[in-house]
Amino acid sequence: MNLTLSKLALAASALVLGSPAYAQQERSTVVQAETASHYPPLFAAEMLIAQEFVDDMIAAGVTVPVPVDPGGGYTHEQHKRNYRAMLLAGQLYDLTGEDRYFQFVREMLLEYAELYPTLSDHPARANQNVGRLFWQVLNDAMWLVHAIQAYELVRSDLYAADRELIDNQLFRRAAQFLSVESESTFNRIHNHATWATAGVGMTGYVLGDDELVHRALYGTRGDGEAGFIRQTELLFSPDGYYTEGPYYQRFALLPFMVFAGAIDRNEPERRIFEHRDGILEKALLTTIQLTYDGYFFPFNDAIRDKSLNTAELYEGVAIGYSVTENPALLDIAQFQGRTVISQAGLQMSQALAAGEAERFPFRSMLFSDGPDGDQGAIAVLRDGVGPDHLALVAKNASQGMGHGHFDKLSWQLYNLGEEVVRDYGAARFLNIEAKQGGRYLPENESWAKQTIAHNALVVNEQSHFYGDRDLADLSAPTQLYFATDEGLQVSVAGIDDAYPQEGVSMTRLLALVDVEGFSQPVTLDLMRAQGEGELQFDLPLHYSGHIMRLGFDPSRNIEGRPVLGAGNGYQHIWEDGRGAPEADQAFMTWLLEGRFYTYRFVPQDNFEVILGESGANDPEFNLRREPLVIQRVTGSSSATFVSLVEPHGLYDGATEQTIDSDSQITSLRHIEQGTFDIVLIETLAGAQIAVAISWDDNPAARHTAIIEGREVTWQGYAARIPLTAAGE
Amino acid sequence: MNLTLSKLALAASALVLGSPAYAQQERSTVVQAETASHYPPLFAAEMLIAQEFVDDMIAAGVTVPVPVDPGGGYTHEQHKRNYRAMLLAGQLYDLTGEDRYFQFVREMLLEYAELYPTLSDHPARANQNVGRLFWQVLNDAMWLVHAIQAYELVRSDLYAADRELIDNQLFRRAAQFLSVESESTFNRIHNHATWATAGVGMTGYVLGDDELVHRALYGTRGDGEAGFIRQTELLFSPDGYYTEGPYYQRFALLPFMVFAGAIDRNEPERRIFEHRDGILEKALLTTIQLTYDGYFFPFNDAIRDKSLNTAELYEGVAIGYSVTENPALLDIAQFQGRTVISQAGLQMSQALAAGEAERFPFRSMLFSDGPDGDQGAIAVLRDGVGPDHLALVAKNASQGMGHGHFDKLSWQLYNLGEEVVRDYGAARFLNIEAKQGGRYLPENESWAKQTIAHNALVVNEQSHFYGDRDLADLSAPTQLYFATDEGLQVSVAGIDDAYPQEGVSMTRLLALVDVEGFSQPVTLDLMRAQGEGELQFDLPLHYSGHIMRLGFDPSRNIEGRPVLGAGNGYQHIWEDGRGAPEADQAFMTWLLEGRFYTYRFVPQDNFEVILGESGANDPEFNLRREPLVIQRVTGSSSATFVSLVEPHGLYDGATEQTIDSDSQITSLRHIEQGTFDIVLIETLAGAQIAVAISWDDNPAARHTAIIEGREVTWQGYAARIPLTAAGE
Repeated sequence: MNLTLSKLALAASALVLGSPAYAQQERSTVVQAETASHYPPLFAAEMLIAQEFVDDMIAAGVTVPVPVDPGGGYTHEQHKRNYRAMLLAGQLYDLTGEDRYFQFVREMLLEYAELYPTLSDHPARANQNVGRLFWQVLNDAMWLVHAIQAYELVRSDLYAADRELIDNQLFRRAAQFLSVESESTFNRIHNHATWATAGVGMTGYVLGDDELVHRALYGTRGDGEAGFIRQTELLFSPDGYYTEGPYYQRFALLPFMVFAGAIDRNEPERRIFEHRDGILEKALLTTIQLTYDGYFFPFNDAIRDKSLNTAELYEGVAIGYSVTENPALLDIAQFQGRTVISQAGLQMSQALAAGEAERFPFRSMLFSDGPDGDQGAIAVLRDGVGPDHLALVAKNASQGMGHGHFDKLSWQLYNLGEEVVRDYGAARFLNIEAKQGGRYLPENESWAKQTIAHNALVVNEQSHFYGDRDLADLSAPTQLYFATDEGLQVSVAGIDDAYPQEGVSMTRLLALVDVEGFSQPVTLDLMRAQGEGELQFDLPLHYSGHIMRLGFDPSRNIEGRPVLGAGNGYQHIWEDGRGAPEADQAFMTWLLEGRFYTYRFVPQDNFEVILGESGANDPEFNLRREPLVIQRVTGSSSATFVSLVEPHGLYDGATEQTIDSDSQITSLRHIEQGTFDIVLIETLAGAQIAVAISWDDNPAARHTAIIEGREVTWQGYAARIPLTAAGE
Repeated sequence: MNLTLSKLALAASALVLGSPAYAQQERSTVVQAETASHYPPLFAAEMLIAQEFVDDMIAAGVTVPVPVDPGGGYTHEQHKRNYRAMLLAGQLYDLTGEDRYFQFVREMLLEYAELYPTLSDHPARANQNVGRLFWQVLNDAMWLVHAIQAYELVRSDLYAADRELIDNQLFRRAAQFLSVESESTFNRIHNHATWATAGVGMTGYVLGDDELVHRALYGTRGDGEAGFIRQTELLFSPDGYYTEGPYYQRFALLPFMVFAGAIDRNEPERRIFEHRDGILEKALLTTIQLTYDGYFFPFNDAIRDKSLNTAELYEGVAIGYSVTENPALLDIAQFQGRTVISQAGLQMSQALAAGEAERFPFRSMLFSDGPDGDQGAIAVLRDGVGPDHLALVAKNASQGMGHGHFDKLSWQLYNLGEEVVRDYGAARFLNIEAKQGGRYLPENESWAKQTIAHNALVVNEQSHFYGDRDLADLSAPTQLYFATDEGLQVSVAGIDDAYPQEGVSMTRLLALVDVEGFSQPVTLDLMRAQGEGELQFDLPLHYSGHIMRLGFDPSRNIEGRPVLGAGNGYQHIWEDGRGAPEADQAFMTWLLEGRFYTYRFVPQDNFEVILGESGANDPEFNLRREPLVIQRVTGSSSATFVSLVEPHGLYDGATEQTIDSDSQITSLRHIEQGTFDIVLIETLAGAQIAVAISWDDNPAARHTAIIEGREVTWQGYAARIPLTAAGE
């Protein structure tokens, strides 16, 4: 055994008390507690959590069943538990030197070494990518990523015979299976391949097998067209954005960070964290930026309750900090309240305990999509800081592969900790047996992916690219402009081929505009669409809240609730009513968690507004029932939608205080002047503000327009021009 | 000026820093901060809040407008602000001796003394009970309760001429108006009269006018048939329950506590707090008991966001503590994080700062209704402690006057901080202008008050007492049994005249039953109804959550959503589907905030189950859209509904962990044997439990039944009998 002096010292010393996380670990024994002494509180608490889990596994006895079950079944879950327990046991052995952890890893690996050579394709294979221990090769790769890390921590203390057995019968075979024998997965540019290359590459380092390392880094052909290095070049945009979106970015991050950490330890001369201008750190920071109050923006196939409090991010933050020593990552670790018990986790926890954390700089940013950064972008506009800040997310990115939604130029709005303008995320109840075994539900295709389920423009009740993913993969929006000036933050994007048959081009400006006398900016949404022939344009807004006031008086379906349409998601919408408001009636106000929001829009020709709710044609009660409002223009080759979302007032039921429950805006107008668009906002207090858009991205160009008989000039793409102050 | 030594000492001393509440008061000046020094943190923080408000009012200048507007209008809100500011200024003067507070109260009272004699009936009178300063006399009484307290704190320091002017032109006139001239309100046994008597009585103490005091205590006729003393005898049950329910109990509490505090200070020999076995303390403690996680049970016309964090309860807790020194009240003050800046608030805050708080004993309790305690009851059954505990509320109380709902024997269930089985509360958006000026909405009558909107039995689609309040006032349920034994907590109540025409008597048993292997008890609901002729019985359950699994396969209205019925609330229900499940299919599971709940029931003859949602026939979008399930028996003179609500499992989207998403119960059976009812519960793990009900309230009587060929005996009304252990 390889007990270091520091381990001995620690084993003998007393417990650091007072950590809240510790206090919850009532079942932990004093012996366990003592081993955590002298570690920083976060790390010590994490060790106790790990010890409890591993000790339970040790008490239950090593169990390595012959693989039989698909995902969720007994053998599947047992092998998952095993790899988690092995890694933690290896880390606990590294930290404490205690023999039982060593023996647990050793015994389990010997059992796997006995089992593995007997395996062929898993009996519950679901598709081409079949595993051995699991029904899918992805799970086998995840097993290897964990198991090889555990092995690294015990290998040098094993008897040579055990070592040889485990090297050859288990890890060499597993690496061979995941690379050469699963070549089609291994050589993909995809996160599944990242797991495989990470597992195989780390196996190479542990076994001292340069050939395996090389295969992992450069693909089975060794030419660098596949493999880990290429993945870091193609799977992230230059801004570190992963095209499937934040939910999958989080998942993909773990093998990237873990394998890169291993490369850095074994071959620091590769400077892997400096590769491609530090892309791995960017990927980590971008993953974090794509959250609100810790929750990932839920666009594409996302489970909405996924937050920074997830195993992948504990690992990512620890490794990221250990490499970069970026003090803002400590802020995230503090938010998480969890870490990992690796040496990286220890280093990070020590810095946190030393008070080195700095506020993570959540801010307005543009994240380009695509390996070359030219496949559109995600634009994030933030106003304020902390859990109550306002944030607008414009989804101008590419389709994002199979988990992408048909939601070009869609957007979301967050405020006061709430998602005010929503994205549905995925229609899926993860791991809930009654909901199709926890898999994606049929409504994920029929609703969640469809354009009408997003805050995106729908032409002729068809989804973008007619719901055809292959077609969608061929193009992406163009981010035309992005600016974060004081008082006016703007994102503009366009796409010309979402409806190739109708020849529709769309351009959308989303902006946060400061208005005199308002505590928060309003969101301006200007969507221009131009196609051919007589088209129907629907612009839905999926909002959260209870309707307080309608500016107009719609016809209402109050005694029977019809379905809005026949397909492409429309079959899932109950229609509550429709109306054709005049300009001064064109608004609605809702209440959400103590704040009022007014959605105000500019009527056009052949215009109506439809109120509805999701939940129709849902035989299994799979959908959430959530409201939406649709602006519709019919029989026209073009449409221009100009809308505002205005946060206002305050409702406090506890103190019975209500302030400004009605909109503080009196008028919203849209003026087209040559190629310019000008939006005029007037407030109750008499302030008048113009947002003038030249659509000219020459920042030096000066533009002039006549607004209400008055000449106004501005410079550049878009400007906020106060015309009249309040009370003037 | 009357600066005491302690005030001088305080004014010179330094600030107590470090209170979180203080840290938020960024705008407060150092001068203000210094005056708060040496006070306990809670009190110091409260002083700063008060100072900020009062200083703003002082800066704005004294403004006493001629009354014009109805509730919510400018003059209405200004007079409300004035009385709040006067009281706080008086208290700040009392605490700091600062002249500006004195002058503010003095100037304002002089302005009121000038205005008051010029007033007659308020121009915006809405009904018989017209005020002078306000449109309703109730508001005038609230004004007086506040203003007279302010006056008490400055009166002795006024010049005699000012004092005489204010005495005679303002307070004597106001007291005369509120008592003699508004005799019909003043002499009622009603909380409006409590406000009036409190104002008039305190005016008597301050002016040294015994006649006013006597009038307040014993009514205008002086015979004690009206007045404050009689109110304490008739408005609360012997257990301190106020018949309108907790939302109004909270509101009524303030004048009771404030006036009683004044009586105790001026005439301690009355021992007002000992009157009727300490009814006022009981009323305070009962108000607090009628909460879950600080929120009042929302039955009857309640605004759901009302919690213990409300001005009435800050005052009530402070006065209650100053009189009783009950350390559990300090626990409530700690929860509130607020107090009042009276001497009572100071005393309470000092005790809190001294660490004298003890956990408030929320527990299973029965609260009788009616002055003699024989008008039914509220039964509260709790399991566990803290914010995650499980609580069942059975509403077996009387109608509760005009704000009462037709919901006899209804119930609610709370768990893990959520309301699992719901009460709608009132259909009202308080102070929101767009929603009928913040008044009760039409849907409060057509939905919120109706029986079908509650978890209560409906016969022939009519509400209890046919929705006739006068009829409802004539009777009340009878609480038949209440027990809180280990493993089985039970409430049983009945009512025979909710449907006099159909001669329906109903009896309902609600129980929390421990089941072997379950972490929380299940709720057993056994409802027996017996009437005459062919009747339809509907038993709705208003649950919170998303349907995960239906045990049966209902016919579904997925392409058009019809309305369930024509009136009495049925017109507001969308029908989603119906089915007639077999016994083994008779359940549904929903997910709510990470916990699963299965509602399981026993099919009967002519039985079906209807799934629906509120929101039909709601032209103004006034209703919340919430799901319900209805058990229906048709064409029968009787029905027995046996149902369970079983909390189970765990869903954690963040960690992607799901445990026991399906019910852990395999069967629920109902056996009638002679006069006994026996409910059999069997679990997946093999445990079998019987709940045997003799309906015999002789606790000594022993009963015998044959269950599955096995003789079982029990003693008393109801018993939990484990028949088979798990795994046997």
